[in-house]
Amino acid sequence: MPTVDLNADMGESFGPWKMGDDAALLSIVTSANVACGGHAGDADVMAATMTLAHQNGVGIGAHPGFMDLAGFGRNRMSVPRETLQNQVRFQVGASLGMAKSVGAKVRHLKLHGAMANMASEDEKMARDLYEAALSVDPDLIIMVLAATAQQKAVEALGCAWAGEIFADRAYNDDATLVDRSLDGAVIHDAELAGARMVEMVKAGAIITQSGKHIPTRIDTICLHGDTAEAVQIAGSVRRQLEAAGITLAQFSGQA
Amino acid sequence: MPTVDLNADMGESFGPWKMGDDAALLSIVTSANVACGGHAGDADVMAATMTLAHQNGVGIGAHPGFMDLAGFGRNRMSVPRETLQNQVRFQVGASLGMAKSVGAKVRHLKLHGAMANMASEDEKMARDLYEAALSVDPDLIIMVLAATAQQKAVEALGCAWAGEIFADRAYNDDATLVDRSLDGAVIHDAELAGARMVEMVKAGAIITQSGKHIPTRIDTICLHGDTAEAVQIAGSVRRQLEAAGITLAQFSGQA
Amino acid sequence: MPTVDLNADMGESFGPWKMGDDAALLSIVTSANVACGGHAGDADVMAATMTLAHQNGVGIGAHPGFMDLAGFGRNRMSVPRETLQNQVRFQVGASLGMAKSVGAKVRHLKLHGAMANMASEDEKMARDLYEAALSVDPDLIIMVLAATAQQKAVEALGCAWAGEIFADRAYNDDATLVDRSLDGAVIHDAELAGARMVEMVKAGAIITQSGKHIPTRIDTICLHGDTAEAVQIAGSVRRQLEAAGITLAQFSGQA
Amino acid sequence: MPTVDLNADMGESFGPWKMGDDAALLSIVTSANVACGGHAGDADVMAATMTLAHQNGVGIGAHPGFMDLAGFGRNRMSVPRETLQNQVRFQVGASLGMAKSVGAKVRHLKLHGAMANMASEDEKMARDLYEAALSVDPDLIIMVLAATAQQKAVEALGCAWAGEIFADRAYNDDATLVDRSLDGAVIHDAELAGARMVEMVKAGAIITQSGKHIPTRIDTICLHGDTAEAVQIAGSVRRQLEAAGITLAQFSGQA
Repeated sequence: MPTVDLNADMGESFGPWKMGDDAALLSIVTSANVACGGHAGDADVMAATMTLAHQNGVGIGAHPGFMDLAGFGRNRMSVPRETLQNQVRFQVGASLGMAKSVGAKVRHLKLHGAMANMASEDEKMARDLYEAALSVDPDLIIMVLAATAQQKAVEALGCAWAGEIFADRAYNDDATLVDRSLDGAVIHDAELAGARMVEMVKAGAIITQSGKHIPTRIDTICLHGDTAEAVQIAGSVRRQLEAAGITLAQFSGQA
Repeated sequence: MPTVDLNADMGESFGPWKMGDDAALLSIVTSANVACGGHAGDADVMAATMTLAHQNGVGIGAHPGFMDLAGFGRNRMSVPRETLQNQVRFQVGASLGMAKSVGAKVRHLKLHGAMANMASEDEKMARDLYEAALSVDPDLIIMVLAATAQQKAVEALGCAWAGEIFADRAYNDDATLVDRSLDGAVIHDAELAGARMVEMVKAGAIITQSGKHIPTRIDTICLHGDTAEAVQIAGSVRRQLEAAGITLAQFSGQA
Repeated sequence: MPTVDLNADMGESFGPWKMGDDAALLSIVTSANVACGGHAGDADVMAATMTLAHQNGVGIGAHPGFMDLAGFGRNRMSVPRETLQNQVRFQVGASLGMAKSVGAKVRHLKLHGAMANMASEDEKMARDLYEAALSVDPDLIIMVLAATAQQKAVEALGCAWAGEIFADRAYNDDATLVDRSLDGAVIHDAELAGARMVEMVKAGAIITQSGKHIPTRIDTICLHGDTAEAVQIAGSVRRQLEAAGITLAQFSGQA
Repeated sequence: MPTVDLNADMGESFGPWKMGDDAALLSIVTSANVACGGHAGDADVMAATMTLAHQNGVGIGAHPGFMDLAGFGRNRMSVPRETLQNQVRFQVGASLGMAKSVGAKVRHLKLHGAMANMASEDEKMARDLYEAALSVDPDLIIMVLAATAQQKAVEALGCAWAGEIFADRAYNDDATLVDRSLDGAVIHDAELAGARMVEMVKAGAIITQSGKHIPTRIDTICLHGDTAEAVQIAGSVRRQLEAAGITLAQFSGQA
């Protein structure tokens, strides 16, 4: 039976403003992607989130994004490549330092929002950003959107990586996500989300809306943390995977 | 003959805006306090400054300040202590990460602006902030304003530290700085600044405006980088110290 | 029977982060203090909040604070006075422009957070900041904490003003607020909060914890928007004032 | 003989960081585009710049840009249209308020950087942003890049506008600017820049690199403020226009 990791974005509060129910998610996931001050998160939020993740035995990841708080890193930006690399270095460094300070460790990297979307379409960009992160810590495991340019980039780099699929998003036959504006693009039914994940993990493939199987490495499943039904979907995915005999554990990053 | 270090604040440009002549100063000083995104500095500036410092064999320090870019960290702020500690952890972590990425290393810490001023008057605050920095990297050498509450804090902590005096500021008899609004508070004459430093380093004491000697450990001399005469004063201090047979070298941090 | 206004801070969301239930409060209050990008609020939040306030016939106020988003304007800052005045001008100008754009009008000013606290202790500071705001719009009605240095400042200026008391805070005999750390400082009981307000408005006086009456002009009652019981307290205050025959209406600002 | 206006971007310092020689340019130009806190400028800089412009009899314009200080508004960003409109409203409002406060008036609008570039290619975007600005002040004269989608937008809106050409940039035959990476794209020779402007203003046409004339309304000439040769070029343009008998005066905005 396969093993799979469950990950969610966390630590996306800022100053007086709260986002998501990190405490609830931390009892479900095995890996947490912690914002590091670019698109969200501040020093207090990072310290609190990493401490709680560490106490729950959850793996900690750096989750850098465009430095655009007001836009939550969701706006595409034409930042010069070297500047973007330095911003990733900065955010990864801050994450490593904060983790060290609370007695924990950063073990993986996952890009956020528009930066991730752009990197999933542009292998060179993905590679440049991953190299920037690895220049700060060569042992980072790079979490990639399975079957996208992000995966091509880590394969070219030869670094440790983990392939990710989404619990609540439908796929097109070319492995891209169905556009959010289309019917069925986002799965709101917790039971359905869980059942799909069992099916895909067992198949070792992304199963598209049309039923096509795209074989791919599924090391981790992305659970969203910032929607109304987030915790229910996360719980359902976990329960159904466990019921199917699939082991939930942090990814190793090895090929 | 004693040995002394020369330090200056650097990397205080931001985005499109330049500050100081870092390249010129890096040929003079032995240690650079590099801003880390709190009061100044961005990821590009940090990368460029650390790279240049490393190429010049200059020791790199993290230089955290209040997270108030518009105020350049010069406004006193009543930030809750734990928040301030986390902000120091964040900035130190970012510095360590960026240094690692460019093949360099952060070896010391120096507080900036209003945060430094407040810590020089408040031993508890100094200690809390130094502990925060040391929780990220216990090997950091803490640079303190000699004979202030900052020095008391490092002595209480038992950590590695370096005592600092100012090349261009006059001292009161209680080792505080003469208020900037008073005549003679700031020394603009490069020759005079150099001569004073030779005298103080040889004496192993701060020599006050009244001529009083306050024996203190002088491990490093602070040169300002952001004034019109900065580079001349820095050059004069270096030349006169060398002419007097004093060795210029990075501080070891040892008692 | 007296007339009184009910006010609450609003528009304190930012980017992706929500704060408070502005829609619920706008059906209760008669005046809204809308954050203007300093301590909270962004252009979208301002536009949406002002539009909704206008549709509800609620008076709109500019609510400037220290430009410290991460600290929500709650940290005291030693910003130079002229800079602070310019920051108030900037925020008031942005408020006026946004109100104009959505077909509404800014009729009052209320300082936020640490800036308000400092101005309630320092008549000169209050006066400087009010003059700055009035230099942008001389018709603004200045909302002041009744019986504090803020009130002295508007009396000295001779401008239109409205005196404010708090629905949910206990008072000391010198008209200052009981420290939050003490028992009974904050009133969480909605019924009690309403009953107190009826009593004070009828008496035309602040009634302190000890029962002392401090006669003062009560033009408006401050309802908080960011606590769990905010909407209940607000509703209770409104219902009890109405039941007591007190008219709820926007303040005129006239003496 | 025609009349023409000279404009330059100003007030692009921020906090402790200076940019450009605004005082020198204000003795040359007839209109100043003053940054308003989006891509540059803070409340102090706005107040000082507007005061100086007013004292020099120079027309003041609001100069909004993407809210990206670190990138100086030069990065293209996929900000949702309504958000961008609100950001323009906010910045224009802040400009109007600050101008009022210093006894001056904002008479025109000019978009900055990447926002201007995108609007010069996209008539709908230009129109949306101009409508946002005009909703704050319907009397604003919109400064547009002559013969681009910006001009189409103001013609469609029927608002007051002024057409602009560049003193130091070469043009392609389709009225777009020669790419900066190509030889001759940027004119560094002050004499040449002045002579070109006399020729174009007299011809009532953009004269392209190939010599082609593109007849267009030339109401104002853009002088750059942030380059080494900025003040020399500006001075040369002014002197040569005056020597040619062309009157320098603020544009009226009328068709």
